[in-house]
Amino acid sequence: MLKIIFLGTGGSIPTPNRGMPSIMIQREGERLLFDCGEGTQRQMMKARSGFMDIGHMFLTHFHADHTLGIPGLLQTMSLQGRTEPLNIYGPDYVEEYCSLLSRLGYLSLSYQVIPRRLSPGDVIKFKGYSVEAFRTFHSVPSLGYALKEDQKPGRFNKARALELGVPEGPLFSKLHRGESVVVNGRTITSEEVVGEPRRGRTIVYTGDTVASASFLPHLQGADVWISESTFGDDMAGKAEETLHSTAGGVAELAARAGVKQLVLTHVSSRYSTDTTPLLEDARKKFDNVLVAEDFTEIELPSVE
Amino acid sequence: MLKIIFLGTGGSIPTPNRGMPSIMIQREGERLLFDCGEGTQRQMMKARSGFMDIGHMFLTHFHADHTLGIPGLLQTMSLQGRTEPLNIYGPDYVEEYCSLLSRLGYLSLSYQVIPRRLSPGDVIKFKGYSVEAFRTFHSVPSLGYALKEDQKPGRFNKARALELGVPEGPLFSKLHRGESVVVNGRTITSEEVVGEPRRGRTIVYTGDTVASASFLPHLQGADVWISESTFGDDMAGKAEETLHSTAGGVAELAARAGVKQLVLTHVSSRYSTDTTPLLEDARKKFDNVLVAEDFTEIELPSVE
Repeated sequence: MLKIIFLGTGGSIPTPNRGMPSIMIQREGERLLFDCGEGTQRQMMKARSGFMDIGHMFLTHFHADHTLGIPGLLQTMSLQGRTEPLNIYGPDYVEEYCSLLSRLGYLSLSYQVIPRRLSPGDVIKFKGYSVEAFRTFHSVPSLGYALKEDQKPGRFNKARALELGVPEGPLFSKLHRGESVVVNGRTITSEEVVGEPRRGRTIVYTGDTVASASFLPHLQGADVWISESTFGDDMAGKAEETLHSTAGGVAELAARAGVKQLVLTHVSSRYSTDTTPLLEDARKKFDNVLVAEDFTEIELPSVE
Repeated sequence: MLKIIFLGTGGSIPTPNRGMPSIMIQREGERLLFDCGEGTQRQMMKARSGFMDIGHMFLTHFHADHTLGIPGLLQTMSLQGRTEPLNIYGPDYVEEYCSLLSRLGYLSLSYQVIPRRLSPGDVIKFKGYSVEAFRTFHSVPSLGYALKEDQKPGRFNKARALELGVPEGPLFSKLHRGESVVVNGRTITSEEVVGEPRRGRTIVYTGDTVASASFLPHLQGADVWISESTFGDDMAGKAEETLHSTAGGVAELAARAGVKQLVLTHVSSRYSTDTTPLLEDARKKFDNVLVAEDFTEIELPSVE
């Protein structure tokens, strides 16, 4: 299971129907949080899953709208009895931010918070997937993230294995792992009974940034690209000036990269209830696009 | 017009139906904010009035659940173009808190934020009312606040004044101000045409604290006492231990003080959707009590 839950889809200022930026990614019982704007903990409670305990936190940058939900969430996880240390990954300033937090509002936590400063190109390996940080372009130090599942072994053709006389049991596992086995004097190779390795799925989240062609290597073939789209194409000048993206600019890049799905978020209050202008601008360049609403859930199909 | 708007009525942890502590008091176009828990700015947007621009902020103490909404609200008022300086009144730590804020999340504000440290007994005079700080008893420096309207002059009996031969105009004002006037050689005193001075209304908010008899001088005759009621009477031990109040303890004090109305807030997640236990405990001691919900509005009748 690999699922994206949009906890907050507003930008800069919340609106009655859009909370501040935060995205949860659930993968096989593990929960990662990307950005944590004010009110995220309450959005977590309102989301269908209701889960609040997270494995790791990734921050794209330290603007207030992306981070002010952190101290409250930390405190609540503590009141709920968390003991496991929490890694907070982010660009330059993450150590200072975590140190400020510890002095704010008499926070006292039952677990350790560990700031982990990342630079573009850093890859953090987890069980079954990794998260790579890459350069983005905003008015303060910022990073984008690509969550990439490891390649999975191909499907095991049980019928064919039995046909070849391989008995069920440890030899199946050996073959599935890529090794050869000898049955009745005949060598059977893994390739004979195991399909092509299956690619892992990829989710890319770029945070606040100008849409840049330098993202292409990370976007190529991605299953989902979650991008900000603070402005419609008619406000390209304003986007450039404030180092944000336009719907059309993002969609053009999505098309070039051949991403499977583009999801726009960080919706300005200007479009909070009617995102038609953003969608129209994007669809001129790229078809499979949607604008996330608070609590939108996207489950990625498994790769056959 | 004097109105109380409950923006957040939860305590410690938000729930789907209760935001973090924050209370707005509107008086003749002026808006004061008492405490500002995480998510307050969005609650302001959802409230019927929709107003976000506030005149002054008062904080009872600096626990995270009462203060984490401040930076986001400050930033939003800035994005909305505020230029007027904002005074943030609070107990010890208010200067440190404001200084931390300025380094958090790259906040950059279009106006000045001025921390104003208050001690018990301090009175801040505003036009037509004052706010007095008094001692409360919690695990960190804390204050309660009594908002007291100035006494208003009595009603002017226009019919009687005309009967006494006073011509409409400046002499009316003189009499209303308490001065005497001479008409046709006869001295007419203010008392002859102006009723008894009318008392100002009083709202008391005590924040997080043990309910203490030392509040009585501030509560006596108050129109509304807004009190925390974190626990039901069956958890009196826990209340004592954590320096919080019980519904019954608060109600007993309300009865002794002869307050007109008691409003319970800071509702633990334990009672978030069913506050019956709190109400039942309170009603054993005091009749005119309600438990605030998010967006409850109480308009105080004017004094005749």
